[in-house]
Amino acid sequence: MDAQSQLIAEAERQLGPRAVITDPKEIEPWATDWRGRVHGTAAAMLAPVSTEEVATIVTLAARHRVPLVPQGGNTGMVAGATPPADGSAVLLSLRRMNRIRSISAVNRTAIAEAGVVLATLHEAAHDMGMRFPLTLGSRGSCTIGGLTSTNAGGTQVLRFGTMRSLVAGVEAVLPDGSVHSGLSGLKKDNRGYSLDQLLIGAEGTLGVITAAALRLVPAIASRAVAWAGVESPSRALELLRFLEARTNAAEGFELVPADSLQLVLEHIPATRAPLAAEHAWNVLIEATASDPAANISAELEQLLAAALQQGLIADAVIAANESQAEAFWKLRDTISEAERAEGPTLAHDISVAVADMPRFITDAAAEVERKFPGVIASAFGHLGDGNVHFHVRAGSHAAPDWYETEGEKITQLVDDLVTAAGGSISAEHGIGQLKLSEFERLAPPGRIHALRAIKHALDPLNIMNPGKLVPFE
Amino acid sequence: MDAQSQLIAEAERQLGPRAVITDPKEIEPWATDWRGRVHGTAAAMLAPVSTEEVATIVTLAARHRVPLVPQGGNTGMVAGATPPADGSAVLLSLRRMNRIRSISAVNRTAIAEAGVVLATLHEAAHDMGMRFPLTLGSRGSCTIGGLTSTNAGGTQVLRFGTMRSLVAGVEAVLPDGSVHSGLSGLKKDNRGYSLDQLLIGAEGTLGVITAAALRLVPAIASRAVAWAGVESPSRALELLRFLEARTNAAEGFELVPADSLQLVLEHIPATRAPLAAEHAWNVLIEATASDPAANISAELEQLLAAALQQGLIADAVIAANESQAEAFWKLRDTISEAERAEGPTLAHDISVAVADMPRFITDAAAEVERKFPGVIASAFGHLGDGNVHFHVRAGSHAAPDWYETEGEKITQLVDDLVTAAGGSISAEHGIGQLKLSEFERLAPPGRIHALRAIKHALDPLNIMNPGKLVPFE
Repeated sequence: MDAQSQLIAEAERQLGPRAVITDPKEIEPWATDWRGRVHGTAAAMLAPVSTEEVATIVTLAARHRVPLVPQGGNTGMVAGATPPADGSAVLLSLRRMNRIRSISAVNRTAIAEAGVVLATLHEAAHDMGMRFPLTLGSRGSCTIGGLTSTNAGGTQVLRFGTMRSLVAGVEAVLPDGSVHSGLSGLKKDNRGYSLDQLLIGAEGTLGVITAAALRLVPAIASRAVAWAGVESPSRALELLRFLEARTNAAEGFELVPADSLQLVLEHIPATRAPLAAEHAWNVLIEATASDPAANISAELEQLLAAALQQGLIADAVIAANESQAEAFWKLRDTISEAERAEGPTLAHDISVAVADMPRFITDAAAEVERKFPGVIASAFGHLGDGNVHFHVRAGSHAAPDWYETEGEKITQLVDDLVTAAGGSISAEHGIGQLKLSEFERLAPPGRIHALRAIKHALDPLNIMNPGKLVPFE
Repeated sequence: MDAQSQLIAEAERQLGPRAVITDPKEIEPWATDWRGRVHGTAAAMLAPVSTEEVATIVTLAARHRVPLVPQGGNTGMVAGATPPADGSAVLLSLRRMNRIRSISAVNRTAIAEAGVVLATLHEAAHDMGMRFPLTLGSRGSCTIGGLTSTNAGGTQVLRFGTMRSLVAGVEAVLPDGSVHSGLSGLKKDNRGYSLDQLLIGAEGTLGVITAAALRLVPAIASRAVAWAGVESPSRALELLRFLEARTNAAEGFELVPADSLQLVLEHIPATRAPLAAEHAWNVLIEATASDPAANISAELEQLLAAALQQGLIADAVIAANESQAEAFWKLRDTISEAERAEGPTLAHDISVAVADMPRFITDAAAEVERKFPGVIASAFGHLGDGNVHFHVRAGSHAAPDWYETEGEKITQLVDDLVTAAGGSISAEHGIGQLKLSEFERLAPPGRIHALRAIKHALDPLNIMNPGKLVPFE
């Protein structure tokens, strides 16, 4: 019996048959990344229900030197939870570890196991008048373990930060099978290097996160959503600074170019432009209040009236009700879908310093369009975080292999431009498999050296999600 | 010529004589920890002025295998910046790297070199209507590099967190001489393990922090300071929850037992009790507002009136002016001095979960006084952070060697009780030299193993502050 079969047989003996899935049909959907671009294969998917069971599995994996690929909701964007195609690894699903161990409005904390789905946590917090303020499109599937392991962002980062700001501590099984317990809820603890911080964003390459202590904030009592027309990304940033100086209620600040809005209006049914005239750039603003007495709509309206008077914006409208607010958000959320209807599109999840973003957007788009005639570059998204989705469309008459040929060269150019601007080629999505070669190409050698040294130190057998985030060799 | 002499000679040749101090009289004050308890010795103190010079020194140290002890203001509490007594290491002073490279109210960020003194940064921020909200007693001497390397806390952690929350990124020279540049100011960056977070609180054992990007907040327009009498630590915590549910203006919430207040009134000149009656416990509350229109005194007064009505507090008074506010703070800040006037005192900087602190204070004090008859245990400080100074006084007739005999046993008992309660034996001060043996005794073996693996991985020659934070062997 080979090492992998021995691991599977021992896991079944120690944890019971429910914890070991070997039916290829059941495994297949979890062996492909959610965008369907990377296909892996695994002879088994292990599904423990407790931290102790995870520790048992990791200990077995170390003994038999069989790599594990930890996985939550399988909603990652860089194939970081997809097993290799050669079948050398076993999937480790955390989805059965789905208990909220504790949740307290007084302590403003929840302790959630890795497999808790984000939407489930949202509901549990809401039921006690609280809120877990991180959210993103896949909230119905993504899990706390995956969100923590990828330091996920989303649409509310402006006010509440990424997972790193919201995780008070993690519990994890380290590659030697020992359990790191960081859930004690200590606000101050200076006993050596922070393993919690090291595990956040490590994409399962240094251990398996089994639970996280999460910060809660008071629930939203009311929200206001506005749409404003501005003449340039610089003006949009001035508007953001104007708002930030006067309120801390702004949670969402999304930039939308005229071109993207036009595509949405063309391709997405039941959409209409919020403003009468066309504007070169648009901003979607969401503000919220947790105080029931606050009139957040009136506050936002006043601020936008002042911004209009100062010439920061050309026009603006506040959503009159919840359904109009949803309609505004739909215009933002369907941009990628509208682009796909036009033809092949490359997506780049990039960041630069907030102050540099307006110039970067303009200069980089011009450079890409100059070097690759016929393509259309546009940027939209989280301007307030210095993080935009920098998309490049091939146009409708692109060759079928456009992604692999011109597409790859365009991505390299975008990554070069971002790196030259001191930015990040991965703002939110991580490195996983898909960005590993670009990361290696562009990161300072000292950084790669340090990351690899840490990986070797904590996972000398390379059993934790090998081939992701950092090259082992 | 031995290795150390070679290093010193080469450093002088490459960096010039100003960067190399060898006069023992000049070195001596920096070779002793600031409480004067640990005396080290060093043949040289290197004093670079730039990141490049630090990189040169680290490269030389690696080549000659001579350990470096990085040092800022030398105000640490655990002798973490004190060289070993055997003279095997060289001091690396960062104090000449004292430029504020940039500071911006719009970006709410300052980039300060390691040697910038905290009070200097406070002034620079204040000059532009902003504030760097971390502060502590040694602000006139402690430096940004030391504060970052020890993840310092202080009195405003309740609202703004420790250095870890306030540092947006660091620049550091790694043990191989390469420079890690984390000052780009990216709000989102998911390119692998966070070296920034690993270096924060690493006490210079993984590299030398040369600069940090720091978050600023709007300057304080007004503050209110109140003194309240409560019947127990539990009530004090209820009061804190009551305030937190109604305002986010509370920055300081310090617990003071009757016994500590009594000592201050006895030993510190020009002090008087704020309230007419004696209360078993007292709370010092500081609230601030950055909005000039806010009336923070009136707000705090109203809240305390409501707390009085609900029976949370027995009495309270708001400082009528700045000098009274300072007088209230003096009662809190001179407790240690008053205790010393009474005789030998052991100080323990400990934390447990906030909700557990009231019971811990009561139970642990009773246990210590029961096992060591005659001593007096009392706890005061940052209740809202779950962090108190748990002090044990010997009484006036203690033997001269009390610290080394009974004192050591008492500290072990306190550390045992904290560990059993899931707490930390070092909430703010770090491990350094002084807590290393207790840390090794009480930490889970898996944690020590992981920390040591990281240390070996990044500093295989053990040239970065050896003998601090984690055992190398």
